[in-house]
Amino acid sequence: MTEPFGRRLAAAMADAGPLCVGIDPHPPLLRAWGLPDSPVGLREFSLRVLETVGPRVAAMKPQAAFYERHGSAGVAVLEEVIAAARALGVLTIVDAKRGDIGSTMLGYADAFLAEGSSLAGDAVTLSPYLGFGSLAPALDVAATSGRGVFVLALTSNPEGAGVQHSRDAAGVAVAAAIARSAAEANAAERTAGEPLGSVGLVIGATVGSAPRDLGMDLGAVGGALLAPGFGAQGAGRAEIADVFGSARAAVLAATSRAVLGAGPDAAALRSATDGALREVREALSAV
Amino acid sequence: MTEPFGRRLAAAMADAGPLCVGIDPHPPLLRAWGLPDSPVGLREFSLRVLETVGPRVAAMKPQAAFYERHGSAGVAVLEEVIAAARALGVLTIVDAKRGDIGSTMLGYADAFLAEGSSLAGDAVTLSPYLGFGSLAPALDVAATSGRGVFVLALTSNPEGAGVQHSRDAAGVAVAAAIARSAAEANAAERTAGEPLGSVGLVIGATVGSAPRDLGMDLGAVGGALLAPGFGAQGAGRAEIADVFGSARAAVLAATSRAVLGAGPDAAALRSATDGALREVREALSAV
Repeated sequence: MTEPFGRRLAAAMADAGPLCVGIDPHPPLLRAWGLPDSPVGLREFSLRVLETVGPRVAAMKPQAAFYERHGSAGVAVLEEVIAAARALGVLTIVDAKRGDIGSTMLGYADAFLAEGSSLAGDAVTLSPYLGFGSLAPALDVAATSGRGVFVLALTSNPEGAGVQHSRDAAGVAVAAAIARSAAEANAAERTAGEPLGSVGLVIGATVGSAPRDLGMDLGAVGGALLAPGFGAQGAGRAEIADVFGSARAAVLAATSRAVLGAGPDAAALRSATDGALREVREALSAV
Repeated sequence: MTEPFGRRLAAAMADAGPLCVGIDPHPPLLRAWGLPDSPVGLREFSLRVLETVGPRVAAMKPQAAFYERHGSAGVAVLEEVIAAARALGVLTIVDAKRGDIGSTMLGYADAFLAEGSSLAGDAVTLSPYLGFGSLAPALDVAATSGRGVFVLALTSNPEGAGVQHSRDAAGVAVAAAIARSAAEANAAERTAGEPLGSVGLVIGATVGSAPRDLGMDLGAVGGALLAPGFGAQGAGRAEIADVFGSARAAVLAATSRAVLGAGPDAAALRSATDGALREVREALSAV
């Protein structure tokens, strides 16, 4: 068995810094890169991003939707990207936001987290509308295979609040309950001395005072916090401190357009990656 | 453009009755059918179920997770199943529970709802943890292509209540807000005289008094209510009346194991389908 995901991610973040770059081959970006909106274009785009950016960052995050747009042929490209990343020693978080119950959830776990599956990167994103507990089959498979999950918790899109800020009869907000469940899931690994548990959360960096308003204890989660919303139009130092507080060390900033938009030139991609990492480090530094 | 999904589904339900049978090639079922847990086994299972059961029911619901277990080769089988259903004139609801925001949500919409996509059946299931509004790109593509969506609203798995029963600051429960948004999305089609709008919900038949407790107005939704939980271990007549009330005419009962477990013999599959339909009709009849 491979080492646990949390340990591997912590090492990658210590080595390369707290940045994860998306691989998002969506149509306007393919066009801007002069590539066809086809499996061939997907492949060219993805492998170029992976090879150029991958060695400079803690993790890459291919977005499943953009591969599924091209059906099974697109999914075959995603498999190739995952295999290429493994060969390069680059961690991948497959952004698939899957969620279901029972044997169906186990099906997704087999697909994205089981040893030997062609769609299994190092971690996968999950969506908990059916409850954090419904994701248990995925957490179990991940624990066995040394992989990780990132569960959607608190996002910055305006439509998300209606679900995520709602409260149960005891007054606990949905996002806070997700964070508490993640903390419980990470407890054994943390007690065993792991720097990060293997159950991360997705937390938007631009959610402002919401974690505090909702009573979320991000410092207790114990897993990585995958956070979109850094960079030029994103959260600055004060806001980051406000959102993440003492949990800043667990933040893995997720960026995409700011880097990918600089391509396809390799030097420009590398430069944009280094620039994004500088911005992230600055935003995460003490106020 | 094809006719709107709601109209096509209403016609299929009037013709064949309010039953949707899942195509769930999960490992124990493949084993029970004497088939390998491989793309070849998936294909054999799926096409046999489709050809035998499809012509007797309103819709079939292939479960994406069980195809994704076999990576792109499995997804290619799902494409083949969708194409075969179209050739047979059988409606398909692809159970994929996708959900994301912005251009990524549009990517999923392109995959599962756009005209010409190999993964587009007649409808797809969606998960609204990021808010009902985040699904708008899918609703837009569906409206253009004459396809439909089923949004997770209120499910009967015990872990679901923590999210779905929670309430916003105005006291509106998450599941009730989803139902209200679906009603708004269906308003134009209903006003135009369509028997069903193209935006359905997933509502567990065994949720008991939850819709009433949460103030959900299922009668106002105007789209189909895809409802697992009928049959021997499921909800009886009184409970169905309690859960769905006047919205019973919009219920599309979803079943799977009760039918698929009778296979692979074709006569047994047909008999189990007919039995399931009788049970559903009985459970949906007036108390």
